[in-house]
Amino acid sequence: MSALSPPSPAPRIGVWFVGARGSVATTATVGALALRAGLGSPDGCVAELPEVAAARLPGLAELITGGHELGHGSLPKRAEELAAGGVFPAQLARALSAELAEADSRIRPGAGPGGETQRAAARRIADDITAFRDRHGLDRVVVVDVSSTEPPAPDHPALADLDALERALDAGESPLPASSLYAYAAYRAGCPVVAFTPSPGPRPPALVQLAAREGLPWAGSDGKTGETLLKSALAPMFASRALTIRSWTSVNLLGGGDGRTLADPAAAESKLRTKGQGLEAILGRPVDGPMHIDYVADLGDWKTAWDHVSFEGFLGTRMTLQFTWSGCDSALAAPLVLDLARLTARAAEAGETGPLAALGFFFKDPAGDGVAHDLGTQWRALTEWCAALGERA
Amino acid sequence: MSALSPPSPAPRIGVWFVGARGSVATTATVGALALRAGLGSPDGCVAELPEVAAARLPGLAELITGGHELGHGSLPKRAEELAAGGVFPAQLARALSAELAEADSRIRPGAGPGGETQRAAARRIADDITAFRDRHGLDRVVVVDVSSTEPPAPDHPALADLDALERALDAGESPLPASSLYAYAAYRAGCPVVAFTPSPGPRPPALVQLAAREGLPWAGSDGKTGETLLKSALAPMFASRALTIRSWTSVNLLGGGDGRTLADPAAAESKLRTKGQGLEAILGRPVDGPMHIDYVADLGDWKTAWDHVSFEGFLGTRMTLQFTWSGCDSALAAPLVLDLARLTARAAEAGETGPLAALGFFFKDPAGDGVAHDLGTQWRALTEWCAALGERA
Amino acid sequence: MSALSPPSPAPRIGVWFVGARGSVATTATVGALALRAGLGSPDGCVAELPEVAAARLPGLAELITGGHELGHGSLPKRAEELAAGGVFPAQLARALSAELAEADSRIRPGAGPGGETQRAAARRIADDITAFRDRHGLDRVVVVDVSSTEPPAPDHPALADLDALERALDAGESPLPASSLYAYAAYRAGCPVVAFTPSPGPRPPALVQLAAREGLPWAGSDGKTGETLLKSALAPMFASRALTIRSWTSVNLLGGGDGRTLADPAAAESKLRTKGQGLEAILGRPVDGPMHIDYVADLGDWKTAWDHVSFEGFLGTRMTLQFTWSGCDSALAAPLVLDLARLTARAAEAGETGPLAALGFFFKDPAGDGVAHDLGTQWRALTEWCAALGERA
Amino acid sequence: MSALSPPSPAPRIGVWFVGARGSVATTATVGALALRAGLGSPDGCVAELPEVAAARLPGLAELITGGHELGHGSLPKRAEELAAGGVFPAQLARALSAELAEADSRIRPGAGPGGETQRAAARRIADDITAFRDRHGLDRVVVVDVSSTEPPAPDHPALADLDALERALDAGESPLPASSLYAYAAYRAGCPVVAFTPSPGPRPPALVQLAAREGLPWAGSDGKTGETLLKSALAPMFASRALTIRSWTSVNLLGGGDGRTLADPAAAESKLRTKGQGLEAILGRPVDGPMHIDYVADLGDWKTAWDHVSFEGFLGTRMTLQFTWSGCDSALAAPLVLDLARLTARAAEAGETGPLAALGFFFKDPAGDGVAHDLGTQWRALTEWCAALGERA
Repeated sequence: MSALSPPSPAPRIGVWFVGARGSVATTATVGALALRAGLGSPDGCVAELPEVAAARLPGLAELITGGHELGHGSLPKRAEELAAGGVFPAQLARALSAELAEADSRIRPGAGPGGETQRAAARRIADDITAFRDRHGLDRVVVVDVSSTEPPAPDHPALADLDALERALDAGESPLPASSLYAYAAYRAGCPVVAFTPSPGPRPPALVQLAAREGLPWAGSDGKTGETLLKSALAPMFASRALTIRSWTSVNLLGGGDGRTLADPAAAESKLRTKGQGLEAILGRPVDGPMHIDYVADLGDWKTAWDHVSFEGFLGTRMTLQFTWSGCDSALAAPLVLDLARLTARAAEAGETGPLAALGFFFKDPAGDGVAHDLGTQWRALTEWCAALGERA
Repeated sequence: MSALSPPSPAPRIGVWFVGARGSVATTATVGALALRAGLGSPDGCVAELPEVAAARLPGLAELITGGHELGHGSLPKRAEELAAGGVFPAQLARALSAELAEADSRIRPGAGPGGETQRAAARRIADDITAFRDRHGLDRVVVVDVSSTEPPAPDHPALADLDALERALDAGESPLPASSLYAYAAYRAGCPVVAFTPSPGPRPPALVQLAAREGLPWAGSDGKTGETLLKSALAPMFASRALTIRSWTSVNLLGGGDGRTLADPAAAESKLRTKGQGLEAILGRPVDGPMHIDYVADLGDWKTAWDHVSFEGFLGTRMTLQFTWSGCDSALAAPLVLDLARLTARAAEAGETGPLAALGFFFKDPAGDGVAHDLGTQWRALTEWCAALGERA
Repeated sequence: MSALSPPSPAPRIGVWFVGARGSVATTATVGALALRAGLGSPDGCVAELPEVAAARLPGLAELITGGHELGHGSLPKRAEELAAGGVFPAQLARALSAELAEADSRIRPGAGPGGETQRAAARRIADDITAFRDRHGLDRVVVVDVSSTEPPAPDHPALADLDALERALDAGESPLPASSLYAYAAYRAGCPVVAFTPSPGPRPPALVQLAAREGLPWAGSDGKTGETLLKSALAPMFASRALTIRSWTSVNLLGGGDGRTLADPAAAESKLRTKGQGLEAILGRPVDGPMHIDYVADLGDWKTAWDHVSFEGFLGTRMTLQFTWSGCDSALAAPLVLDLARLTARAAEAGETGPLAALGFFFKDPAGDGVAHDLGTQWRALTEWCAALGERA
Repeated sequence: MSALSPPSPAPRIGVWFVGARGSVATTATVGALALRAGLGSPDGCVAELPEVAAARLPGLAELITGGHELGHGSLPKRAEELAAGGVFPAQLARALSAELAEADSRIRPGAGPGGETQRAAARRIADDITAFRDRHGLDRVVVVDVSSTEPPAPDHPALADLDALERALDAGESPLPASSLYAYAAYRAGCPVVAFTPSPGPRPPALVQLAAREGLPWAGSDGKTGETLLKSALAPMFASRALTIRSWTSVNLLGGGDGRTLADPAAAESKLRTKGQGLEAILGRPVDGPMHIDYVADLGDWKTAWDHVSFEGFLGTRMTLQFTWSGCDSALAAPLVLDLARLTARAAEAGETGPLAALGFFFKDPAGDGVAHDLGTQWRALTEWCAALGERA
């Protein structure tokens, strides 16, 4: 390289949100813009810890956002609403209103029910993503699903096999859950996928095959931000101390959009399924006790979880632990979404394909074979993977 | 060995308690007898987990107990009192009263203030332990300090060096804190030591030298049974999620003997010192927030801890976690005491000497160089050590 | 009265339990026997407070118990089980086993589904009660329903009017819910009724008419022992401080028989209905927030309730209160059951008829016109009534 | 009155704060201005409840504020800081900045240690208050102490008697605690006094005599805003249910100015004294259990209190209640301060003198003979007094 050649530019990474004006995407967008402008500190960004940064990740300041959204409104307005709800300081929303308006202009209409066929919708979605990549000269775009939770995927035969899926799409059928339609289109556009919700997304076998065929990595599912995070830190404590858990009761009070969605029992079923499995996986047996997700409108973007654990120690003595977690779901999720985009982009750059088991640390329902649910073990897997990535091109 | 020779007998291990009629020693004695009689299940015994049992430990049924005690009373009576306080079922105390009376007959008067010199007291203590070993034909005796918490060790120059210590003892001086006197005598009797309290015990440099010179292992200090256990499981969660802890308030309400001891500010200082250091070690910086240990007589042998954690996430958003732990201290400590006796006996058998860093999992103030405070890391260190021990003679 | 005449004997009062071997009746029976034998102190007995005792109530030692029961088993055995679950000390069950066996001999088979007509069953029940009164020479018998919760009463037309009810019974129909069948029979035997459960019992209009026609008092419904008690103490605090409650979430974890019954949604509906109405009555408007009753088997006779209250103060500032109540339901209910028997017996003696509004203090769903739900107001009403009763013959 | 005469104008009331730029006074000032401007709802204002408004109180919009302050800064700036801390919405501080600047211009320098004699300081303070009343043509000024908590009053003999006090002041002595100096000056200016802090203020006998001699009413002490409020609602529940409280532990975590002041043990002593006495007064006996007030800087203007209540029910069964109160102290105190100013002004108008026992509802340490601590009884006393005031001129 001659002395006159410019420095090799940092890779430019696009983050394409499905649900781009939702609470999580808006908070992530505000955060990315704020950090680029030097207006906040990256608390909650795992990728800024040295053990993870060791993977040589794209910088926070190199991210550019876009996405699909079914709803109306605008990012500046959504940001104001979230600030009023205490998700981030109001002055941040004001200071970044021009940048947010610009980011909003990169959001395209999502694919709703009816109208076009899924084949056409997939093509349109892929075209939107490709256009975004081309217009901004991006090295890579990661598609991140942060849209509302869907019910569990019905057992459509076309989801079991990629060829069957293609035939069904060709025949004008609509076999894909919405979240999987976006994953399909993302792969068709050559983009890795992050499933931050419990929706089916990239999980149906047909899509697992497609990712493999395209040589793309993907990560999921269902970001572990609150009560399940605590469970994955506490359950190993009981297990390693040989204390038998007799019952574990979980109550989750949620306001905001996610709470409203989960007031629908069908959607709640997806969430409860992924929330419940971690405890069983860590303890090696099912555990008694109710699990509730309740919509309490006045909590807004905040969530309060109360857990009551009854356990048995030496000679049958009964004891209890209870905890109350009071957190802001969007503020907890947004930095992880940015982390996942950066880590998945780096994995794609390094040539990884298929489910990224090392990212199980971030998820309630980690994809990949034999992924641990215990947070400490997940952290070790993540950091070892990052160290190895750091050694690679 | 001819085909007719009997099977090599299991090693017989003695557990010699300092504070042999205290709540913890009584509960451990009841538990060891109950498990031998098939009257209870070993919940809370870490050594029964396969990853730890892999070390090929002496069996619970092979343990025989004895000890020193300053107080009056008797094990059967103490057991009845503890059962009335809900520490274990009353029928257990009744069913084992003969065995408890027999165990009580193996308890010798401890060394109180005044009367004999420390040189004489140490000799008497060592003789008691040796007599116990000989009478019962034991392969090994582990001395376990579960007596009341002492104030931090004063800076006596004789504690800094073994030769200086011996000279001081020869001169009729009393440089040793009571807990260290027992550790000294134990080493002189060829026994490894477990320090389950925050008292100085084996920690002064003179005693560290003595253990090394005698080729004996030792473990300590201050059993991690409740609130600190939770801290060591939860603090790594915050750290690995890049969530900044702003304050951590700890309130411990204790009844019973330990609570009364800790109502003395000097003794509480020992406890607060070891409780506080774990959080700082895990987070790498001091954390604001009060820490209280309060004596609330009506709680009896139970303890209630309330912790309030205030932390900061993305873009400065403040959130909280609080938990209430309601546990029976003796029931939590007793199985760990049996675990430590078995693990330390096995370490001695395998020729380990000095502080057993791999046992940091059990302690608030783990001895050994660079021992982690994070429970998950401690668990891994313990189980790797156990696996390696299992490979050795 | 001549100087030689003996002192007028204290009135002898019978307490006839519906559900006589249930947890509450067993605990109340144990308690009455224990207090008579001088084996316990009457903590939790409101009638022992001077403001209530002012009514000149029959003494605890004058009570004699009997009742109906569908289940098998025996009082001594049930007492042992409850003692094992921590409801009262085991030595109490042992010390009173002869008296409990005698009390068990006064329990008669209850009326189950099928077999006899309700007309015949009512006659049999009334005969049992009358025989109990005659055999023991009692001045008065109070029938107290402490059986399992039934679903809300269906709208049978015969329940709306006493004459219609009598015609239906004559016609061999079964219009009465089980709890109301017992109330009917009690009135026919000339006995006042206490409804300690949310079951319909004395509430259908036909039974209200019957009580009036017979000139008998009755009290109900649904003993206020735990979380609802707290609500009735705390909601007035918010109201009188002009703090607007935005949501009130209630989670009730119950083991034992009552928990199992309430795991049936139909039965839970009765309970949730009476639990919910107090808050609305005190605040004068409905309040948002989920209310759960969950069966958690391992809690046994204990109950843990967690409530989360979100409220708004000056200039819209949002604040929260949360509480955890950990109580033994039978131990809380049993003394109130004895209180109610004594107070209702005294009311009958003083000639009161119809719903005893002054006893609203004891109930989640207080009978009588315009009865307050606020605990302080209820206490004042109770004590004023007691003072007035004390002035009467 | 002729048809042409104008309506009699509403009385205009001045509120003169001691500590006029503190958190409570600033929030009260913002609130009064906001409500006048129609920018908020009066949640938390007891005087707006119909049972209290029945006293025919001066309207919120008729209040005009002023006061003394030792510290620098300005109301608009303090309001911004409080809004940033979540005490009230930031737009309120911005919208009212002109009005706040105007209110700030009515604040005069307070009396600090040193410099002038107490005689001179009292004269200056009284002159400031009189000038405020004259300039704004006020009917009445109520002096409200919301300054930082002082240590308990030392036993100066001049405080025991008004004549002795006057002689000491004439002699150039400084016998008065600062809070009492303001009360003295207020009375000399003909103004009633409200003591919202636990400082001595109007409590020394010499000042009680002065109020009586001047025919002025006064109210105090120590506003009951949080944990003590809950105690006064919950303790009567236990008492009326005959449940024996065995221990009551109280932990108060406070940030902000008040927390910092109370980190000084001498000042905390005042607070702990008034906090503790309510429970004892309600239960009629002292109650075991620690009480902590801790300064936790990061909580800002918020307070978290955790209470743990251990109680005993029927046959000795032990149960627990715990609660966590998370409130904003200034937002809780400010509306009560406005209430007290209005109620005390009305009392003065109606000719009441001496301690206003009916206002015990507002205080931890209610002045007046035999004032109840039970919240329900206090509420009844308040509303009966208000009803009677409503009948008077």
